[in-house]
Amino acid sequence: MLTKVDTKGQDVAQIMARLGQDARAAARPLAIASKERKNAALRAMADAIVANEKTILEANALDLANGVDSTLSAAMMDRLKLDPSRIAGIVKGIREIADLADPVGEVIAAWDRPNGLKIERVRTPLGVIGVIYESRPNVTADAGALCFKAGNPVILRAGSDSANSSAAIHACMVEGLRREGLPEAAIQLVPVTDRAAVGEMLRGLDGNLDVIVPRGGKSLVARVQSEARVPVFAHLEGICHLYIDRSADLDMAVRIAVNAKMRRTGICGSAETLLVDRSVSKTHLVPILDALAAAGCAIRASAEVLSLYPTAEPATEADWTTEYLDAIISVALVDGVGGAIEHIETYSSHHTEAIVAEDAKAVERFFNEIDSAILLHNASTQFADGGEFGMGAEIGIATGKMHARGPVGVEQLTSFKYRVRGSGQVRA
Amino acid sequence: MLTKVDTKGQDVAQIMARLGQDARAAARPLAIASKERKNAALRAMADAIVANEKTILEANALDLANGVDSTLSAAMMDRLKLDPSRIAGIVKGIREIADLADPVGEVIAAWDRPNGLKIERVRTPLGVIGVIYESRPNVTADAGALCFKAGNPVILRAGSDSANSSAAIHACMVEGLRREGLPEAAIQLVPVTDRAAVGEMLRGLDGNLDVIVPRGGKSLVARVQSEARVPVFAHLEGICHLYIDRSADLDMAVRIAVNAKMRRTGICGSAETLLVDRSVSKTHLVPILDALAAAGCAIRASAEVLSLYPTAEPATEADWTTEYLDAIISVALVDGVGGAIEHIETYSSHHTEAIVAEDAKAVERFFNEIDSAILLHNASTQFADGGEFGMGAEIGIATGKMHARGPVGVEQLTSFKYRVRGSGQVRA
Repeated sequence: MLTKVDTKGQDVAQIMARLGQDARAAARPLAIASKERKNAALRAMADAIVANEKTILEANALDLANGVDSTLSAAMMDRLKLDPSRIAGIVKGIREIADLADPVGEVIAAWDRPNGLKIERVRTPLGVIGVIYESRPNVTADAGALCFKAGNPVILRAGSDSANSSAAIHACMVEGLRREGLPEAAIQLVPVTDRAAVGEMLRGLDGNLDVIVPRGGKSLVARVQSEARVPVFAHLEGICHLYIDRSADLDMAVRIAVNAKMRRTGICGSAETLLVDRSVSKTHLVPILDALAAAGCAIRASAEVLSLYPTAEPATEADWTTEYLDAIISVALVDGVGGAIEHIETYSSHHTEAIVAEDAKAVERFFNEIDSAILLHNASTQFADGGEFGMGAEIGIATGKMHARGPVGVEQLTSFKYRVRGSGQVRA
Repeated sequence: MLTKVDTKGQDVAQIMARLGQDARAAARPLAIASKERKNAALRAMADAIVANEKTILEANALDLANGVDSTLSAAMMDRLKLDPSRIAGIVKGIREIADLADPVGEVIAAWDRPNGLKIERVRTPLGVIGVIYESRPNVTADAGALCFKAGNPVILRAGSDSANSSAAIHACMVEGLRREGLPEAAIQLVPVTDRAAVGEMLRGLDGNLDVIVPRGGKSLVARVQSEARVPVFAHLEGICHLYIDRSADLDMAVRIAVNAKMRRTGICGSAETLLVDRSVSKTHLVPILDALAAAGCAIRASAEVLSLYPTAEPATEADWTTEYLDAIISVALVDGVGGAIEHIETYSSHHTEAIVAEDAKAVERFFNEIDSAILLHNASTQFADGGEFGMGAEIGIATGKMHARGPVGVEQLTSFKYRVRGSGQVRA
């Protein structure tokens, strides 16, 4: 039976430094491991989770009991909770990652030079990845498997709330590595729950951590983004916009607006602000707002929208920068696509924006002038997801522009190198 | 007539913060400027440099006079010096950048989803780039033009030694921007020579600097790499290896060794260590070392090499990690390609390594197992250069694995976004 990890009296800095060294040492054997061995290890991890379901559920029960003691919110308890169906989801996820094409060694560009040199650009692993998460124990498996698939050692830092569940899942991941004779340090779980461990990761473990991926709420992501001394793949907020152009098909606009906001309100790709072309405010605004209201959405309206739709609440300036993650939408009128672009470039978190329009010129302008990771035309913002993009599992959506942007799947967790083949060429 | 910039009494932090804000404000107009306008501005910059050659040479004469006063080394005076031929080289470089394909808007991947969504991944500018350099005034034009071509505002920080020359060249760059009505803040030169300006850039100008490229000697690059709070594209050292396999053609090995080391000893791609397969030490070692010695190269030999080539000097441990940038090479014997890989993974700076071999298996192992930016087979390490790769002008060679690696040309100075076209799709 697992017990809550006792961190007192341990030298966290030393433990973390050692994790970094071990991860770095695992990088080379992992980088040159064949795809067959990596995939066999992934399948063995999935099998080990199936075989140890009872142990994992016991560990989870312990975390849930601790959660009751420390009065976790109902939402956090739900994120923490595992059951046979959630465990089956974890297993399915790992097996899908095993089935993905291996990115390492993929030739992403090739060309010949006039002097006969043949140049190839091929994918390589990226480096040691740190994943810092909160109460969802499934991240242990999802993020561990994804980093491993791309040939990267990973250091997982689970929230203290899910320490036992994460440790039980992690043990299964290590069993998979062991069965294939791959370095166990390829997937490490920080063995202490002390918050100082996060600080050590943010400082980069003496150069042994190459990138950090925070998975959790806004305060975690904000801390990581502001304090990390290594690159971060993350989005702080998904303040996503839906713009209804004068050329929009009204039925489509209604359907997309309701889906973009209400399908799931708690995901980063859900729309938070609706912008409607002022020139169709008389025809398009009310039917869309009626449909949203009928679906249970609260409306926060600009003064102008309020005059046309008096049952809404008035929006304040803060509404344009708020990620509700709830059944609430802010609404404003804008002067055509140019006005929409201005509003979005002012308030967006550069995650995902959508336009509903039949006018190709308006779409092109929207696509060219907005600097967000994902832009959609005549489709719901809720498609902002690696799986929906056909990129397989993702470790998150990145709003930064350095290295990874948008869904961070297995390809985004790679770097590349050049291979040049000659026949004795020397430089003049 | 220009005079040396007086920085005393100015609030450097304020000046730098303003540069960052102005650069960020220029990002959007620059990102959406057409390639025709950008290229016209680049040609206008080149024309302005031609028209102002006399002014530039006068400014350079002032820097050279100041250099004599502050007793700059002969090497630094040479880097600082401009003449009509060097100015013609600068002009040619800018015109070549104008002729490059525009990376912004290029579709780098496109695929359709089963639900009919059409996804495109397109290049976008990367963000505000800071370039910190030393005495070479030409970097003002080269780096300024390259960042501009990729749609990125750039903040150039020239060394104080070249302050007047850089200012004179920068004035021509701004004239080009002005002629096309593009924001002058697209290419800014830090107007103060105070070293505190560098510190402000390393701290990221309140989030208004996205990446820093240091161009200069090891101490500059080391400082930037250790202190920067934003990503850095750079290499600290080019400790490049040449490995001669047992399967190597001896004539080719001799030719490549002499070229890799001696063509130009002062560039980052010149070989610093020669590794010879122990099993051909009797046949291959002496002819290669004789050819290097005949070309004027000093040999620093491991004990074993020394016993076979007694005229060499003995190597110390420090030699395996020294970038000589001079007519000196360290030499060791290794046990085949596996031994070469071990040595290189232990001592390399992960810049460029080459193998001379006829055995395809040895080459594949060398290519797969070494984690350096550039690997070459049967070709000189001196090909490690963006121009030689057909990538056009480069701002440097990156040894990091995040975002850019190897030659950093116009494509590496971009990010990307996703454009998704639908026909009313909503997510189930």
